[in-house]
Amino acid sequence: MRKPVIIGVGAVPVGEHWRTSLRDMAVEALLNAMEDAGVDKVDSLYVGNMASGSFIEQENLGALIADFAGLGNIPAVKIEAACASGGAAVQEGVKAVMSGLEEVVAVVGVEKMTDAWPSDGTRYLGYAADSEYELFHGASFVALNALIMRLYMKEYGYTEEDLAHFAVNAHINGAKNPYAMFKRPIKLETVLRSPYISDPIKLFDASPMCDGAAAVIITTEEKAKEFVDKAKMVEVAGMGRAIDTINLANRKELLTLKAAKVAAEKAYKMAGIEAKDIDLFEIHDAFTIMAALSLESIGIAKRGEGVKLAKEGQIAIDGDYPIQTLGGLKSRGHPVGATGVYQTVEAVWQLRGESPNQVPDPEIALTQNIGGTGSNITISILRRV
Amino acid sequence: MRKPVIIGVGAVPVGEHWRTSLRDMAVEALLNAMEDAGVDKVDSLYVGNMASGSFIEQENLGALIADFAGLGNIPAVKIEAACASGGAAVQEGVKAVMSGLEEVVAVVGVEKMTDAWPSDGTRYLGYAADSEYELFHGASFVALNALIMRLYMKEYGYTEEDLAHFAVNAHINGAKNPYAMFKRPIKLETVLRSPYISDPIKLFDASPMCDGAAAVIITTEEKAKEFVDKAKMVEVAGMGRAIDTINLANRKELLTLKAAKVAAEKAYKMAGIEAKDIDLFEIHDAFTIMAALSLESIGIAKRGEGVKLAKEGQIAIDGDYPIQTLGGLKSRGHPVGATGVYQTVEAVWQLRGESPNQVPDPEIALTQNIGGTGSNITISILRRV
Repeated sequence: MRKPVIIGVGAVPVGEHWRTSLRDMAVEALLNAMEDAGVDKVDSLYVGNMASGSFIEQENLGALIADFAGLGNIPAVKIEAACASGGAAVQEGVKAVMSGLEEVVAVVGVEKMTDAWPSDGTRYLGYAADSEYELFHGASFVALNALIMRLYMKEYGYTEEDLAHFAVNAHINGAKNPYAMFKRPIKLETVLRSPYISDPIKLFDASPMCDGAAAVIITTEEKAKEFVDKAKMVEVAGMGRAIDTINLANRKELLTLKAAKVAAEKAYKMAGIEAKDIDLFEIHDAFTIMAALSLESIGIAKRGEGVKLAKEGQIAIDGDYPIQTLGGLKSRGHPVGATGVYQTVEAVWQLRGESPNQVPDPEIALTQNIGGTGSNITISILRRV
Repeated sequence: MRKPVIIGVGAVPVGEHWRTSLRDMAVEALLNAMEDAGVDKVDSLYVGNMASGSFIEQENLGALIADFAGLGNIPAVKIEAACASGGAAVQEGVKAVMSGLEEVVAVVGVEKMTDAWPSDGTRYLGYAADSEYELFHGASFVALNALIMRLYMKEYGYTEEDLAHFAVNAHINGAKNPYAMFKRPIKLETVLRSPYISDPIKLFDASPMCDGAAAVIITTEEKAKEFVDKAKMVEVAGMGRAIDTINLANRKELLTLKAAKVAAEKAYKMAGIEAKDIDLFEIHDAFTIMAALSLESIGIAKRGEGVKLAKEGQIAIDGDYPIQTLGGLKSRGHPVGATGVYQTVEAVWQLRGESPNQVPDPEIALTQNIGGTGSNITISILRRV
């Protein structure tokens, strides 16, 4: 099999970009990645995006972005897997390289959420759930996550304060990230005093509505040598992706992210590693409860003990299991279709030793991107070459 | 390289399915294809869909459909390339098989358009064009195609009647297709007397708003032997895909579909064939003008002479270049994200000798699927094994 490596990464800062369009953000991130890789053309483009049709009334993002980035008459499509669109787009880009049909592939994740009214945006995010079984009956996407958080607290005896540790950790790290939306540390009290958006989820348990774009350039190890030194190459050593029931009513077990479990096992096997070999984790903390469940489902914490890692500081940058090293979804921000690509960019920075919040000498990183309430999850294992 | 073959196809009739949901149509088409292939599980699912977020307020179609089809915890994503989403999804499914990461892949194209008000639907289709440069200024998607048709008629001296021949041919063939939305032949006068929807495009120059789903099962030739006889296998011998400028203002030449030209050349090269070797063509006649331009851009007709093939009857089922053998977008219908998969299903039926409107003993078929006003085009070459 051809060995896929990432040779360039780029992004724009996450934020409320009132004066920048989706296409401009995507093109900027893409050109940054191409410059980083030293390539001036690519064979194809994959765009990770969840809901541009709803947010900005624009589809056909493949053509839009490839056209305005000046990439010529190449193949270009959009990949959608709800909030896991970015992670899925990276994996599709890797597959394209592995297929032998394409040599150098660009992936850009982008979402422009702030052009919509927040109430409309909340509705659009609900399209990640089962609209006919959930959204149309009044359950917002936050409300569905709130049900899971409530159950988690009840089942294991945790408090809202316990889960708040994930948000605090995210902000500590995000404060060091020039690309983060929220660049200052917060205290536990900040989280606890913030208003409920869907009880027991508070504003500071949740990631923000925002705009952003991030990009990576993927090729084979063989071809990579034409463009960059070995120090700049990061191998995509393992990939897994799985779905679960799209609505919660049909799910047998709400406190295990089965899709994450299946995806992680597949990714570990492909990379020939175990969970304990991984040096850092960019997981999907759209809500603090999702951070806890993610750690438990990918084999880092035992069932019901994800929160303990947060309380004990093991998820901190100098802990045994550093997560969200540049702020995660909570602090860096969560421009939904772009998030999985931001995670990849940040993991690459770590593995190259270029991160503004560096984990000491990491070899292996994991990225985990969740779509829906755990219904579509991607896991990728990145490794230093 | 691994040789990709299609071993199963399925569909639901195109129409106004007021009492059937998107998920139900997609699941039915998918299960039909799986039954045809004799497989009871697949390794992953690709969903071709343009605008489910807008039409039915639902994203995350990969999880939705894989879940309700009972496919288990497999990878599943949506592929979007405007009206070429179906064609692109088939190609991504093929790439997945060629990557070696997956053995048996399902592709389903689906669109549910009739749940939206027609005026809203017209707007959603405009998202395939450049919303900020075209749609928001009042140019509907039909209007953009009308500009091209007007220019074509002026440049080459054709009349509206000349282009109407494409619609007549489509309906003659569609009348024999049990899956077609419009099952009766029409006359030239029918087209000419139909009202303008955007001068010079009349109602009968255009494909309808409708609902539908179609599916294919793809694997390697090696693996295919476990499931079906050779007679049921159809090779995906060549693939090409390319973008062009998304808005017409930036396009240098409006009367050549450059993306089709680039994609066709690539597909022919991969398949080791020339245009003249192809026995039938399922092209993208969303409007009659697009049928003419398509024939000219893929090397079947000279520039400005696509219409002649229609007038001379060469595009008929017994002509030298049979197109739209089961009605094309005009008569079978154009559930946008499903269309490219319907084209594939129909080409497979032809190559297996199972079509209800059979071309005599064909060896090679071409499918061509257009997104936007020619901004995102896929071409696939299918060949009897």
